[in-house]
This record gives sequence, structure tokens and C-alpha cells, in this order.
Amino acid sequence: MPKEATTPSHVLLLRGGFVRMVGAGIYEMLPLGLRVMTKIAAIVREEMDRAGAQEVLMPALLPKEYFEESGRWESFGDTLLRLKDRKAGEYHLGPTHEEIITDMVRRDVKSYRQLPLNLYQIQMKFRDEARPRAGLLRCREFMMKDAYSFDTSEQNAIASYEAMREAYHRIFRRLGLDYRIVAADSGAMGGSTSAEFQVLAQNGEDAIVACTKCDYAANVEVAAQVVPAKKTDAVSAPSKVATPGKKTIEDVAKFLGLPASRTMKTLMVVADGKLTMVLVRGDHEGNDVKIARAAGAREVRMASDVEIREGVGPVGYLGPVGWSGPVIADMSLDTGEGFVSGGNEVDVHLRDVVLGRDFQAKLADVRTVGNGDPCPRCGGELKSYRGIEGGHIFVLGTHYSAKMRATFLDENNVEKPIVMGCYGIGVSRLVATSIEQHHDENGIKWPIAIAPYHVVVTTAGKGDDLDQAAVRIYDELRAKGVEVLFDDRDERPGVKFKDADLIGIPLRVVIGKKGLAEGKAEVKSREEKDPTMVPLAEVAASIEQRIVAGGGRLRAS
Amino acid sequence: MPKEATTPSHVLLLRGGFVRMVGAGIYEMLPLGLRVMTKIAAIVREEMDRAGAQEVLMPALLPKEYFEESGRWESFGDTLLRLKDRKAGEYHLGPTHEEIITDMVRRDVKSYRQLPLNLYQIQMKFRDEARPRAGLLRCREFMMKDAYSFDTSEQNAIASYEAMREAYHRIFRRLGLDYRIVAADSGAMGGSTSAEFQVLAQNGEDAIVACTKCDYAANVEVAAQVVPAKKTDAVSAPSKVATPGKKTIEDVAKFLGLPASRTMKTLMVVADGKLTMVLVRGDHEGNDVKIARAAGAREVRMASDVEIREGVGPVGYLGPVGWSGPVIADMSLDTGEGFVSGGNEVDVHLRDVVLGRDFQAKLADVRTVGNGDPCPRCGGELKSYRGIEGGHIFVLGTHYSAKMRATFLDENNVEKPIVMGCYGIGVSRLVATSIEQHHDENGIKWPIAIAPYHVVVTTAGKGDDLDQAAVRIYDELRAKGVEVLFDDRDERPGVKFKDADLIGIPLRVVIGKKGLAEGKAEVKSREEKDPTMVPLAEVAASIEQRIVAGGGRLRAS
Repeated sequence: MPKEATTPSHVLLLRGGFVRMVGAGIYEMLPLGLRVMTKIAAIVREEMDRAGAQEVLMPALLPKEYFEESGRWESFGDTLLRLKDRKAGEYHLGPTHEEIITDMVRRDVKSYRQLPLNLYQIQMKFRDEARPRAGLLRCREFMMKDAYSFDTSEQNAIASYEAMREAYHRIFRRLGLDYRIVAADSGAMGGSTSAEFQVLAQNGEDAIVACTKCDYAANVEVAAQVVPAKKTDAVSAPSKVATPGKKTIEDVAKFLGLPASRTMKTLMVVADGKLTMVLVRGDHEGNDVKIARAAGAREVRMASDVEIREGVGPVGYLGPVGWSGPVIADMSLDTGEGFVSGGNEVDVHLRDVVLGRDFQAKLADVRTVGNGDPCPRCGGELKSYRGIEGGHIFVLGTHYSAKMRATFLDENNVEKPIVMGCYGIGVSRLVATSIEQHHDENGIKWPIAIAPYHVVVTTAGKGDDLDQAAVRIYDELRAKGVEVLFDDRDERPGVKFKDADLIGIPLRVVIGKKGLAEGKAEVKSREEKDPTMVPLAEVAASIEQRIVAGGGRLRAS
Repeated sequence: MPKEATTPSHVLLLRGGFVRMVGAGIYEMLPLGLRVMTKIAAIVREEMDRAGAQEVLMPALLPKEYFEESGRWESFGDTLLRLKDRKAGEYHLGPTHEEIITDMVRRDVKSYRQLPLNLYQIQMKFRDEARPRAGLLRCREFMMKDAYSFDTSEQNAIASYEAMREAYHRIFRRLGLDYRIVAADSGAMGGSTSAEFQVLAQNGEDAIVACTKCDYAANVEVAAQVVPAKKTDAVSAPSKVATPGKKTIEDVAKFLGLPASRTMKTLMVVADGKLTMVLVRGDHEGNDVKIARAAGAREVRMASDVEIREGVGPVGYLGPVGWSGPVIADMSLDTGEGFVSGGNEVDVHLRDVVLGRDFQAKLADVRTVGNGDPCPRCGGELKSYRGIEGGHIFVLGTHYSAKMRATFLDENNVEKPIVMGCYGIGVSRLVATSIEQHHDENGIKWPIAIAPYHVVVTTAGKGDDLDQAAVRIYDELRAKGVEVLFDDRDERPGVKFKDADLIGIPLRVVIGKKGLAEGKAEVKSREEKDPTMVPLAEVAASIEQRIVAGGGRLRAS
């Protein structure tokens, strides 16, 4: 077990013999792992087909020209794996296929009559991630379903997007995943036409909040806060107060006998080269992504102590009163109340500083929303989660079609750019994601719909009668199209049970001496603590029923 | 249509909308093409599973180290697509996976108890072919099934090889291909443990001969000739004959009133730098590969006129008598008869030159066997074909396992190298290969087992009654799991029929005015000239029966 394997899915995939590492972020799917991935892909395929999308298969080896046309040959940076062929022609491996599919559509689609179109593929993608991590959670070669929709208008594109959202719901439900649809940070696109399907998991890379009452959910970068109520209490003019050695919010609040929520926290950032003051309430946390958006800046970094000392005042005692540079204040400070801020002098703070009266600032939502905050949609309580992005749906608009001149003639013979959407699902990532959500201290607990095998049949004890009964049940199950493992290894029952639990087989049939004497076998699910004794003649039917009830599927004979 | 598209499969795949070119030797599978390829892959998968092989999926992006270990990082030359990652680590794209699978097996397999093993994958391969050609026939990115067997002994490896040969028979038969198993030129391995599945096709790259009586078939490079009978007639000593201006076999034979088969053809080659004479009968052709093998040389080229003039004699009048360098004579000359050869003087030939009496030579099989030659196995008549390599099976022996130390402990605890085999099928190539064998002037004629759709339903004429009847039949067929296209375009029937024939849909149902008045529909296969009138209520059952009879499969509902 490599020492970098720490997340449960990484450890269990390796220990259970599902995958093998071939290089950093490069994995081989062994038979068990491939069976799970194939089942996930089959569910994705069925739901895409049901939604009217058509499957294609684009190449992974791509000539430079397409990405050059869109500008991504440069903008993808080091993540793009570039190579040259024997004639020094430049190529790259496909990290995603917007350009290739747009090229196809611009060649073939001429008229509005040929639209809408939704094309998808299930294929290996290549990205030279700076930090591949956690086994299948972030790989450099990974299986993805990527779909692209083509419509005649923004409105129709949104309809395609909604259809994909419904298809994704069905997919994630069938996969047995607990997930939230969250508004992602989609930059210029606006939140309403981009959403992530976040699978809840302790080891997720993404921080999200979700309402405990309604279905609101958002990445913390975009989770909106509720506009605060205005207070109308009169507030005295600001007054200096000596706060010797009190530099942190905690120390100041305690020293002054006030809650942290009545203080202002001053953050100094450098936004596109300009020193900028950001204010949030003492009990809140500033959010980098929101700050950058509020500043309208491409690059934002924390100011250094030197920059702060030279440009503003003593670190630990900063405040907006008397500072002439730009100030961005979080909207939670806009209540008309007085807050405690730094006095821009060593050992000095100011009481009763009122935003808009004592200093001017650009108001914005710049803090991280979290546990206990009110839901911006229904007022209910928000809860924080970690999530793994399992899918992403996105209205692209005319970004690629305009650049690549993918147009159509509308009903009035007017040439217009096609309106696109794109829709991804990380198929190989979902193998690991499922484990992150479905495991215990003994191993994996696959939902039956994606388990590599439905059931393991084995004996407890020795004897030809036991073996024969086990083989009979194995044959019966196979005849019904059940995917069954027969564990005939010469091991103690405990070892066999442990292995079956490790690899997460949902159902177990055990032929033991005592049961067989009564004409019965033990049937137990991975979830159940104790087996049920089932008459031998009823075992196959009982297993079949459990599989179907659990969303599993029997093989066509 | 690009001008380089000349082979039928290339033209029809493009015209029929099955594939689209993205770069040289790089194709995208459009919905129709992907459906065919997926069906071929499914048949391959079923037969591999039936043969007890287990499916895995290895990465395409491979760290340099594995191929370095086997020596192929160098020996693969320009065909290997190499690239570097963001840390300047060296990688390549997998052209085949012997090293990767051997690495897996050496890590996991320790004992003879874990053998035999047969692992396969269906996956995109990458080879930077010097001359990609003919669409899917020779691509730089292509889908391949590659399987690898691991055994404890050469004998067991041959058993694995034989099992694969049987599986391949089933696969090629189910695909509806006319093929021959031919002994390939396997170099040092020996012909008995390597065979190609050659699909007969006019545009094939490979020249093969096959017996018209028994199942003997071989690449012309290895097709053996029958040892000639010895003649015991007394032959006079060689005598000079003036042959003014007669330089070609044809001219000399005609001039002397002899058949070409009584003359010797003298070829001068340079084998690993050494000027060497090669003799074949006047009516035979020398074969480069056989000559190289007979000379034991790595590199053989034709000698230049200068080299010949300076080293032997006048071009057009060469012969073995009086030449002191090495001579290789084809075994067909070893009959004890006298042949006419050149006299090594301008305008002079020699009659009655007898091999072994008048000159010494190394006897070998150095000529191309062809149409009309006797079969080396049964004496029947051979016929020449062009073939496309669809599959290749191969006993590798311990080539990789010895180099990479993939060993096991046998029953006596003795460490031995694992004996390997490898087995490829060009899945995407078979899409094109099938067309090469199944097309006419109107388009593709897919065998029903791999057709993108089983049947097309359409109307001839206009009217709600026609449309309703067509929709009803469409729905009935779909309910039965038939893959059906509904052509409801506003086109003339002739145009629709032409398109259906172009894309090779095996069955057609047409609802016409006249037939409908009698409660009947036209049912016609792509092969048939005239349709059969079938009562509407029986159409679905009739189609179903034709599909099953043709080896097609209905979808599980």
C-alpha cells in the first residue's frame, strides 16, 4: 500500500484489487474495478440515450489546430499534454472536446431544421494535473462522459440544459449516491446556467453549503448571504479606545466585553496590483473567490506585512477610518450599527464606526457562508458539507460557436451562432466517489446497481454435500442471470467473509453443515448483521428479489 | 470526399456518415459508425469471456520505464508517440501492452496455482504509422482487443493459444467474414505458434495463398513450396549459345524455343553488405522475405547495375558458372535437370547447366508461391488472395517474462519464467474490413449481426393512413427489441431507398398506397431484388425471424 493512499476509496480500491497504479495519477482497471466502472458507464449511457442524446466517439489524439482556434492551446497551460508526431506535427491529448464537436457540427449543420442536437461520448480524457491525488478521485487519465448540446436560441439551450439536469438526477439516483445540485462559480456565465452535482463525502475537495429545509445548495464561493436588516438605533461618533497589545479579533472583543460580531475584521489584499482594504464582521471569514469577484480583479493576493505597514498602518490595528484607498465591505456590516475597528495606530481601536457615515466602501458579498447561516432562498438553516464533483452541467452560450463560426440559418434565412451547452460526468471518479460514500471499517459496500458481482456463494465447513449444494445454488443463480462469485478457496469461512466484505459484494449465500441438515442456506446482505435461513429451493428466488429491489439488473441469458 | 479516399470502405464510411476525419489517420466515430464498432466489440467481448479470459483496462498514457525495460522504448522507433509531462517525465502512448500486463502479473502472480491467466482489454491504441491509409484500415488511433495469456509451460501456452484460435474462429464467423487462418512470418518464433486471421478482400495489404482443397493458407512470405521430384535423365555438359541482344527470360526462352521453366533467373542482391547471387526458375518470382531468411541477413537489397557489372558480369547475361561468390538457389532448380543460364559474357547463355554438377549453391525456398502451385499440405491447387489482417495470435514464449523477471514457483518450488501468448483483434479496422467484403455499387451491405440498425421503416407516398401504419409497425418492432430507423423525411421513396442502401441497413419495410389497401407492407432485404408483400399484422414477426436467422440480436426490453 503506497503511503500516499489515505482516502478510503484509494486504500480500498488497491486492497480489494480493483485498480493498480501504473504511474502517478495513472491507473489500470483490474477485472473487479472494470466491472464497476462498466456498470456506471452503462447507467450513464442508458439515461443519456433516454434523454435523446446520441453517442459518438471522438479521438484522444488531437491536432493542435482546433485548440488553437479557440485559444485553449495556450490557455490550458501545463495541464494540456502536448506531443509531436514523426513529422514534427503538433498534437495534444484531449482534456475535453468542445472544439472537436463544434468543428463537426459546423461542418454538418447548416439549418435550424437540423437542431437541436445532443452528442455525447464515454471516453478516456487526459489532463496533466499538477497534483494527481487520492487514486481515482483525481487522475491524469480518466474516463468521462461528456455531452454537448446545440440549439437555435438561449431559451432552447436552457431547455436542453434542464433535460440534462433531469437525466443527471436519474443517473445519480440510480447510482445510489447522496448528492446535492449546487450553483457553481461559473465566472462570467452567471449561476443559473451552471450547476455541479456534488456527491457528499468527508474527503471531498469542495466546500459546499446546503439548506436543511429546502433544496438550496451552493459552493461556498457562490453561496449567497441574506441581506441584513437595518438597525435604526442612534450611534455616537467614533471614539478611540486604548487596546494595548490586543491585535486579534478575539483579544479585542474579550478586552472590550463585546461579541466578535460587533467588531470589523480588516483584510488587506493586493487586487491586480492595487492595495485594497476588505472588511468583514469579526465572526466571519473572507472568501477569496468572492473578494476577487467584488474587486473585479483577475488576481488577488494577501498583502505582505511590509506592504501593509508602508501603505496603511500597523498590522493588527487597521481600520477604514482615515484610509484613503479602496475599501470593500461585506454587506453584513451595512446595518447602520457601530462596529469596533482598528485605529490605524499601534494599541488603538475605534468604537462606534458606522459604515456609510464614518467611511465609504463598496458593499459586496465577500464572506464565506457556513453552518448555521440562514438559507438565502427559504431562510432555513444552512449546513456545511464536503463534496466531490461528480457531474457538471453548463450552458456555454456562443463562446465556442462564435469563435469557430459554427452557425445555422434560422427560419428567416438569417445566419446565427449555435447556442451550446456541455455536460460532464466523471465516470471513473464515480467509482471512487461511491466508495467514499459507501464503506465501513470492513471494506466497501457497493450499491447493488454497480456492485462488481451481486452475490458470493461459499461453504462453511467441508464435505461433498456442502460443495454440491453450493454448486447447485451457484448454477441456479447463474441461470437466472445473477452475477455470482463462487468462493471455493480452501480458507476458513471467516477469511472468505472478510474478503467478500472488503470487496463489497452486496449479498452472501453460505452453505453450512447445520443449515444444510435442515435443508437451508444462510442468506445475508452486506448491511445485515445476521443471516436469514432460507430453504435451499427458495434461495435463488430470494436473491433475485433482493437484487431487483435494490436496483440491480439480471443479465439477459 | 478527400481525394485520398479510394478504397470502398473509406469512401462509404465517409459518404454514409459513419466516421469523420479529425487528422491524418485520426477518425471520429459518428453515431452510425460507433453502433457498428460497439457491436463488433460486444461479439469479441462475449467470445473472450466465453473462453475464460478476464477483461481489464490498461492506461494509454504510459511512463517510459516499462518499454525501457523490454528494450522497445528504442526499438519501436518513430512509431511510438512519445511525450513529456509538466515535470519533464517521459511517457508514451500505448501501441500494445505486453510490458504493462507483464508488470501486473509479475507483481501479483507468485505460484503455479495462480496460472493459467488470460487477460484482455478493448481499448484505443496509438501508433504513429508512417503512412496511415484507407480510413479505418490503418489509423494512428484505433480500437484494438488485445489479450495476453500466462502459463506454466510451453505446452500449456500452446493450449491457451489453441483456445484463442477457437475463440477467434467463433468471432470471425459471427462477424460474417470470409477469412483464412494463415501462418504468418513470425521470424524467430516459428510458424506453428503464430497465425493471422486474414479477411479476404481485394484491397488487402497482404498477399496470401490458400489451398482450394484443404484449409492450408499462408502469407506468400512463408507459403512453402513442394520439394520437386528428381529427374534422372542424363544431361550433356554445359555449352555456350549465342543469344545476341536477348537479355530477358522471355526473349531467351522464345529465341531458344524452350519454356521459361527450363531457364534460370539470376538475381543479384546485397545481403548485409555482401554481393550474393540468387537463382530461381525462369517462370518464378524471388521473394524478398524468403531471400533474407535464406541469406541469414538482416538487410537485403537489390544490387545496383554498377555493383553487378564490377562484381559479376554483364547485366542480362549473368549465371552461376564461373562466379565464385555465394549462391542461393531455389529448391525448384534441384531436379537434376539442365537449365539455361547466363554465360557471364555479353550475348552469351549456357545450355544444360545442372545444379550441384556445374555449380554449387545453398538450396533454399526463396520464391513466391502463387496461383496454381501445389498445396504443400495436400497437393491440391493453391490460389492467391489479398487479405486484411483482422486478428493475430501468437505464442510469445518467455521473451517478455524473462526480460522483466515475471516468474512463478512450480510444484517443486522452482522459479521459472511465465510462458506468454498474445492475441490481437483490430476492432475498428474490422468495421472497414467488413465493408471491403460486403458492399456493392449502391453502398454497404452490413451482416445483420453488426448492422447499425436492423431495419428501416418508411412510406412510399403521402397520407395519414400511410404514416399511421408506418408508425404502428415502428412501435411494434421497437417493442420487440428490433433496432429500427424511421425515415420520415420529406423525400421521394427512391431517395430514401438509396440512402438506406448506402448505409447498408439489412432490412426495409415500406408502407405504400397499394399494399396498404390490401392490408400489406413491402418487406425486402438489402440482398433481395424484389420485396415480399407481408400482411401488416405479420410484419414484426417476419422481421424478427429474419434478424434472428441472420445472427442478429434483439435488445432486451
